[in-house]
Amino acid sequence: MAIETIKWVRGRIRIIDQTKLPNKFEYIYCRDLETLWQAIKRLSVRGAPAIGVAAAFGVLLGIQGFKGKDKLKFLDLFYKTCGYLATSRPTAVNLFNMLNEMRDVVAHNPNADVGSLKKLLFKKAMAIFKADQDVCRRMGEHGAKLVKNAMQCLTICNAGALATVDYGTALGVFYSAKKQGKNFSVYSCETRPLLQGARLTCWELLREKIDTTLICDNMAASLMACGQVDIIFTGADRIASNGDTANKIGTYMLAVLAKHHGIPFYIVAPRSSFDLAIKSGKRIPIEERKSEEVTHFAGVAVAPRGVKVYNPAFDVTPAKLITGIVTEYGIIRPPYMKNIKGMIG
Amino acid sequence: MAIETIKWVRGRIRIIDQTKLPNKFEYIYCRDLETLWQAIKRLSVRGAPAIGVAAAFGVLLGIQGFKGKDKLKFLDLFYKTCGYLATSRPTAVNLFNMLNEMRDVVAHNPNADVGSLKKLLFKKAMAIFKADQDVCRRMGEHGAKLVKNAMQCLTICNAGALATVDYGTALGVFYSAKKQGKNFSVYSCETRPLLQGARLTCWELLREKIDTTLICDNMAASLMACGQVDIIFTGADRIASNGDTANKIGTYMLAVLAKHHGIPFYIVAPRSSFDLAIKSGKRIPIEERKSEEVTHFAGVAVAPRGVKVYNPAFDVTPAKLITGIVTEYGIIRPPYMKNIKGMIG
Repeated sequence: MAIETIKWVRGRIRIIDQTKLPNKFEYIYCRDLETLWQAIKRLSVRGAPAIGVAAAFGVLLGIQGFKGKDKLKFLDLFYKTCGYLATSRPTAVNLFNMLNEMRDVVAHNPNADVGSLKKLLFKKAMAIFKADQDVCRRMGEHGAKLVKNAMQCLTICNAGALATVDYGTALGVFYSAKKQGKNFSVYSCETRPLLQGARLTCWELLREKIDTTLICDNMAASLMACGQVDIIFTGADRIASNGDTANKIGTYMLAVLAKHHGIPFYIVAPRSSFDLAIKSGKRIPIEERKSEEVTHFAGVAVAPRGVKVYNPAFDVTPAKLITGIVTEYGIIRPPYMKNIKGMIG
Repeated sequence: MAIETIKWVRGRIRIIDQTKLPNKFEYIYCRDLETLWQAIKRLSVRGAPAIGVAAAFGVLLGIQGFKGKDKLKFLDLFYKTCGYLATSRPTAVNLFNMLNEMRDVVAHNPNADVGSLKKLLFKKAMAIFKADQDVCRRMGEHGAKLVKNAMQCLTICNAGALATVDYGTALGVFYSAKKQGKNFSVYSCETRPLLQGARLTCWELLREKIDTTLICDNMAASLMACGQVDIIFTGADRIASNGDTANKIGTYMLAVLAKHHGIPFYIVAPRSSFDLAIKSGKRIPIEERKSEEVTHFAGVAVAPRGVKVYNPAFDVTPAKLITGIVTEYGIIRPPYMKNIKGMIG
C-alpha cells in the first residue's frame, strides 16, 4: 500500500504526522490555516516537495470559507493566505514556488469572478498534487540508471514518499531501481537532530524490503574509508541557478567526504526545488531552529542547562562537489550554470 | 572544585557515573572486579587514560582479598585479574599498557613474596594515578601554545577531566589556555550515539566558564565552511607507531573536513595512548557496540524495529591528516614514524 503523505479529503488536508513515526502512524486533519501552519513549522509535514503541495492546499483552506462575490475582499483574503503560508519555513523554495503558481492563476485570469477563481485555484492545487506524483516517478526512472547491482548507496534525512506526495526524490531512485530488479543496499544517516533518517527513511525502506542499515551521521566518513559506499543520493530544499544546493544539515559534510573518497554524489530534486532567481547558494536563507531540538530528547535533557546551541536546519553544498542533479527531465551535469538553464530554464 | 573522575578510596574504586551526567552527579563504588568491569563496559567510566587508571586500580581490587602466602596461587589470581580486565573494551590501548605496567612489577621482582608484591602493586597503581594528573597538566601546557586569542576551537567526544583522572587531554589544553588568560571559544560536537560531547564536555567547559557552543556532529562541516573553526583538538584511544590514530567515531570525519577547509587538526594524548608495537592504524581493533545505542534514546525507539545498525565506537584517522600530536613531552609533528620514535620511543 502506498504511503499517502498529504491528501485533500473533503475540504480538509489530511497529513501523516511525521513527528510520531515510526512508533505511531497517525493522521492530522487540517481544517484551518493555523493548524496547517503549525504542522509545517513543527515538521509534522516536511520535505521540500511535500511542503510545496501543503502550501497549495493551504491556499484552498484559506479561501474555501469565503462567502459572497466581492472580488476585492476575496483577493485580499487570497493574498493574505499566501503571505501567511510563506512565513512557515524559509529554506525550501518549493513553498514559494507553489504559492507563486497559485498567484499566477489569479494573475492570468483578471476577469474571472470569485466563483471561477475558486474553481481554478482548486484545479491548480490538484494539478500540483498530481504533478508531484508524476515528477517523482520520472526522477526515479532517471536516477535508477545510476544504481548498479551490488552497489552500497548512502542517503541522509528523508527524501522519500514522506517528503513528497507519495514516492520520493532520492528514495524514489531506490524504489525505481528495486522495481527494475536490481540488488543494492542503502545506508541511512540518522540525521540529527530530528532523526528523519532513522525514523522516516528506515521505516520507508524496510516497508519496501530494501536492504537498509542505519548509521549515525558521524559514521559516514568511516564507512567511506572502508570502501562501503559506492554512491550517494540526497534530496534538495533549494538549488540556485549555479547548482549550489541547500539541503538538510549534514549534506555538505557528505559531499566533502565523498569528494575526499572519490565517491559520486548526486542530488535528486524536481524543477520546483530550483530557484533560478538567485545566482548562488550564498543567497539561500538558512533556517535556524530552537536549541531544544539538540539539547533534549523525548523530554530528557542531554546537555547541561544554559549551554549555547547552534542549530541550522540546512547547509549549502557548492555545485563543484555535486556529480549530477537528477531531475524529472534527466540528469543535469556540470557546467551547471549552462546546463540547468538548458534543461529547466 | 576539581572533578575527581576516579579515585581509590579505602579499598574501593570510586568513580563518577558518567552515564548519569549532566542530569545527576552520582558516584559508583566498585568493591569487586565484576562491578568495575561492567562500569567500564557500559561507559560509566570511559576515556582512554581513565580506563587505564581503572585497570590498574582493578588489579588492586582483584588481589586485595587474597589471603595467605602461596605465591603461585597469588600469581594465578593476579594474571587472571589482568586477563579479565583486558576483556572489558578492545580499542583504547591505555587499558593494555597499564595492565602491562602492573605485570612488569611482578616480572621485575621475581623474588618478592606475596606481601611485598601486594605493596609494590599498590604503589605502582598509585603512581599510575598520580602520573596521569601530572601528564595531563604537561600536555595542557604544550597544547595551550597553539590557542591564540579569539580562536574558535572545536572538539568531539569528551577528552576532559572525565576522560582522565582529573584534568583532561584535549580539554586540558583549553583549561591551560584559560589559566593563561586567553580568550577563545569552543564548539563541542555532541558525539552520537552516546552524546559524550553534549553531556560531558559541555558540562565540564561550562563549569570552567569557557565560552561553549553545542552542535550536532553533522554541523561541523557547515561551521568550517563559514570560517567559524580555527583549530581542532581531539583525544586518542590508540596511536600507532606511524601516527595513525583511533579515537571516538566522528574524529576521522573532522580530520577530512579540516583538511578540506585548511584547518589545523591536533590530537592530544599521553605516551600511554601510543601502541608502538603496531605499524599502522589498520591493526587497531575497532569496538562495535550494540545497536540499541543508535535505535533508542532514553528508552524511546527512534528507528523501526528490526532495522540493521552499524555502530562502531571508533574510527581511525590516518597520520597524514594530523597536523600534530600534543604529548606530555611536547608536540610531535610529521614525519611521525621518525618523530614519535624520537620523542617517546
